[in-house]
Amino acid sequence: MDPSRLARRLAEAGQSHLLQFWKELSPEEQSDLTFDLQEMDFQEINRFFQKAMEMSSGSKQEKMDARMEPVPREILGSVTRDRERLKDWEEAGLLCISQSKVAVLLLAGGQGTRLGVSYPKGMYDVGLPSRKTLFEIQAQRILKLQQLAEQNHHVKNCVPWYIMTSGRTMESTKAYFSQNQYFGLDQNNVIFFQQGMLPAMDYEGKILLEKRGKLSMAPDGNGGLYRALGNQGVMEDMERRGVEFVHVYCVDNILVKVADPAFIGFCVKKGADCGAKVVEKTNPTEAVGVVCKVDGGYKVVEYSEITLATAEKRSADGRLMFNAGNVANHFFSFSFLRDVVKKYEPELQHHVAQKKIPYVDPEGQLIKPDKPNGIKMEKFVFDIFQFAKKFVVYEVLREDEFSPLKNADSQDAKDTPTTARHALMSLHHRWVLNAGGHFIDENGRHVPAIPRSAAQKTSEHLKDGTDLPIKCEISPLVSYGGEGLEELVKGQEFHPNLMIDETGVHQLVKNGV
Amino acid sequence: MDPSRLARRLAEAGQSHLLQFWKELSPEEQSDLTFDLQEMDFQEINRFFQKAMEMSSGSKQEKMDARMEPVPREILGSVTRDRERLKDWEEAGLLCISQSKVAVLLLAGGQGTRLGVSYPKGMYDVGLPSRKTLFEIQAQRILKLQQLAEQNHHVKNCVPWYIMTSGRTMESTKAYFSQNQYFGLDQNNVIFFQQGMLPAMDYEGKILLEKRGKLSMAPDGNGGLYRALGNQGVMEDMERRGVEFVHVYCVDNILVKVADPAFIGFCVKKGADCGAKVVEKTNPTEAVGVVCKVDGGYKVVEYSEITLATAEKRSADGRLMFNAGNVANHFFSFSFLRDVVKKYEPELQHHVAQKKIPYVDPEGQLIKPDKPNGIKMEKFVFDIFQFAKKFVVYEVLREDEFSPLKNADSQDAKDTPTTARHALMSLHHRWVLNAGGHFIDENGRHVPAIPRSAAQKTSEHLKDGTDLPIKCEISPLVSYGGEGLEELVKGQEFHPNLMIDETGVHQLVKNGV
Repeated sequence: MDPSRLARRLAEAGQSHLLQFWKELSPEEQSDLTFDLQEMDFQEINRFFQKAMEMSSGSKQEKMDARMEPVPREILGSVTRDRERLKDWEEAGLLCISQSKVAVLLLAGGQGTRLGVSYPKGMYDVGLPSRKTLFEIQAQRILKLQQLAEQNHHVKNCVPWYIMTSGRTMESTKAYFSQNQYFGLDQNNVIFFQQGMLPAMDYEGKILLEKRGKLSMAPDGNGGLYRALGNQGVMEDMERRGVEFVHVYCVDNILVKVADPAFIGFCVKKGADCGAKVVEKTNPTEAVGVVCKVDGGYKVVEYSEITLATAEKRSADGRLMFNAGNVANHFFSFSFLRDVVKKYEPELQHHVAQKKIPYVDPEGQLIKPDKPNGIKMEKFVFDIFQFAKKFVVYEVLREDEFSPLKNADSQDAKDTPTTARHALMSLHHRWVLNAGGHFIDENGRHVPAIPRSAAQKTSEHLKDGTDLPIKCEISPLVSYGGEGLEELVKGQEFHPNLMIDETGVHQLVKNGV
Repeated sequence: MDPSRLARRLAEAGQSHLLQFWKELSPEEQSDLTFDLQEMDFQEINRFFQKAMEMSSGSKQEKMDARMEPVPREILGSVTRDRERLKDWEEAGLLCISQSKVAVLLLAGGQGTRLGVSYPKGMYDVGLPSRKTLFEIQAQRILKLQQLAEQNHHVKNCVPWYIMTSGRTMESTKAYFSQNQYFGLDQNNVIFFQQGMLPAMDYEGKILLEKRGKLSMAPDGNGGLYRALGNQGVMEDMERRGVEFVHVYCVDNILVKVADPAFIGFCVKKGADCGAKVVEKTNPTEAVGVVCKVDGGYKVVEYSEITLATAEKRSADGRLMFNAGNVANHFFSFSFLRDVVKKYEPELQHHVAQKKIPYVDPEGQLIKPDKPNGIKMEKFVFDIFQFAKKFVVYEVLREDEFSPLKNADSQDAKDTPTTARHALMSLHHRWVLNAGGHFIDENGRHVPAIPRSAAQKTSEHLKDGTDLPIKCEISPLVSYGGEGLEELVKGQEFHPNLMIDETGVHQLVKNGV
């Protein structure tokens, strides 16, 4: 592109400062910067900024409280309150899977910054006995689900896996899958695509420079999904494959039931075009968004948007009135998704996230601000709930299905590799107990079902003894959701270091016994 | 005592080994040991051992599951499900307090071993802005409650405070109160007494030696309360004062509502002789005992006594069927307590706690075992529920009323000084918000009601900004349970470092502003 034309475009958009260090840049830096800039639609970016700031200042003035209604019981499915229907839902979901109508879509655009690593989160190894990464666990769950559906319905099937990366994670994610032979999945059924990036801006709408010749860019939020689905050919791919239902989830949840047949079956049987899996919010000040009705449509209201009084409101049964905690785990029908991509996505406005953004000041100095100095613009994956014609909510148990990996291990930190690892091993421990297995200690005595490690040490009279959690890991290739374990464990006693995988039952006992 | 007579008594009880190092002891050590031994009733101790071991082996074989029934709704009061009655209960309780019919009884026999300190837990300072200790906070709550009752009923009143210590904590506890002028309470209304001690024994019933001339002794459990009430003149003191209702609680809960008027009022209005305050257990594997009905009587069933299948059982409303989590917080009528002390206490058998107990072996070497090698015998405060004629349960919110201090701060640890401090400040933060106050950040913007520090960082789109929790502490002398704050905070904006005490409202802002 003609440099003067670029300068003119920037001037028209009020972004001329991006070239302020032009003369100091090396020819290579100049060419890189030119490449980045000529890709961008500054008018559109300015428009995004304008609208996002308007929405942001509007929503800050006015709390949502008065407009919120709780999720009505008739659109709610619950694993604790609808136990007798679970089997039906699961079968309905498995049938859809066996017909190759179900795809999973993974939101994996984030880097593990808060985890303290520079590679994609899905490549993180939380320290399980198997050393499996999040990607590997999820891949094996998909494999197992295909097998279960095939066993039940005697037909080969496929659950394609769409993986949304970002500019920052695309190459390393693809390389990782390739190096690992796609964990046994058919390479053709693992489809990578890439979400967009947007520049970070100061409060006046000026794009920030990360270096003198480089813009500060960030992914456009998990709601960038919809734009990416449209402009990267993903919808066409789904259509070609005959995908009818899509399960969308976030990479960081180690317990995620990928393509959960019960959730899918529930949504399908309800005729829903859009569904949200939730966990019960039990503490008013828990920082989780809640699914609720606002002005007649469904929405995730964030904890910062409501007053404490509303967060503390309770129903007659004593539960929090707004307790449908959003966990970034959704169901969409293909046709809904298509409408969203075609019609609704452009209507969505960006949310403003105020951030501390390192930037180069007019003197060319890199400044690391100690308070927020600018914004990143993001869309959220749940912003489209409002467009659903038939929206449903599916409540599951947190301890069974939700343990996100967010932060590095440290005192005080929540959602760490340790909590994720413990959550998975605790779940698998319970699977073994419920399948009739037992754990014994070094003296051959049964270990109580509830390990002390999980203890909120509340009572004064806790027994001494081992404080170690029971180490128990079951490969997804052996069991997707606890099924099929009786024949392996029933009536048997295990040392509390148990691994069950496709090669058999392994016990690791101290002293090499 | 005649040494040969002591030796004979020991021989008769099969405990002669206690004198095996006699000749190697200094005269002082000999005299100390003699003093300790002649106090003890070895026949009784052996009987305790026998019975405790029988009970323990019996209960281990057979799980409770089949005999358990949940708490029926008609004996349950709930702060979330009976909101409209709370005011009545509170008023009824305050009336009792104004009539000086209510006493509080503190279980404070434990040392802060797990906390890493050698002094009584009540003297622990969790690092609040005020640096108040647990004892001081509780004392001020009693003071405030006396004032509230006086304001409401225009009559001087007194809530006597019975403090059960143990041999290990008696002197330091008394000295601490005396040095602090009983925190403004009338010294005559703070009554210390001491629970008993029992020797630790090996699995054959031999008493263990901690040193060559010293027995290994431990407090007899918080259920040692009842024996101590009888043999230390406490019941007579209560009778003399006209105490009709006693609130029993454990020192380590920083949120404890000492003599909680609503709890007392609920129990009194129900005509209960015995009541247990509980919090809802929401996770099946949470290591908390649950109040339930067993063979027609009430009981706390410990998590080690039930199978996972029972722990996971749910009612039609989706809640755990056995969800009345015991928090060592009880109501007793005086007459019930008197019957317990006189009639029922001797019937109670000790529970067996298997422990790693350092001991001197026959060669005189101190051994620190790495697995349990013996037992301590304990009674539990809730063992007497079974004798109640009218038992009730009162469910409260964990985040408002229960945050025990058990462990030193460390990664992974629960119930630490940090969690206790945060729980208290979070509660007081909510009080301020609910009284119409606001917190603002350094830019003058309102801080959302739900601070990120409390965050289970579940959603992908958390805003950046300050990660600090709001520091907010309100003296119990200003508010017992959130009342009376409107005039101090309504419509006002505070920096997130707020202290409200009897001298006024204090804001500590960074940079000394």
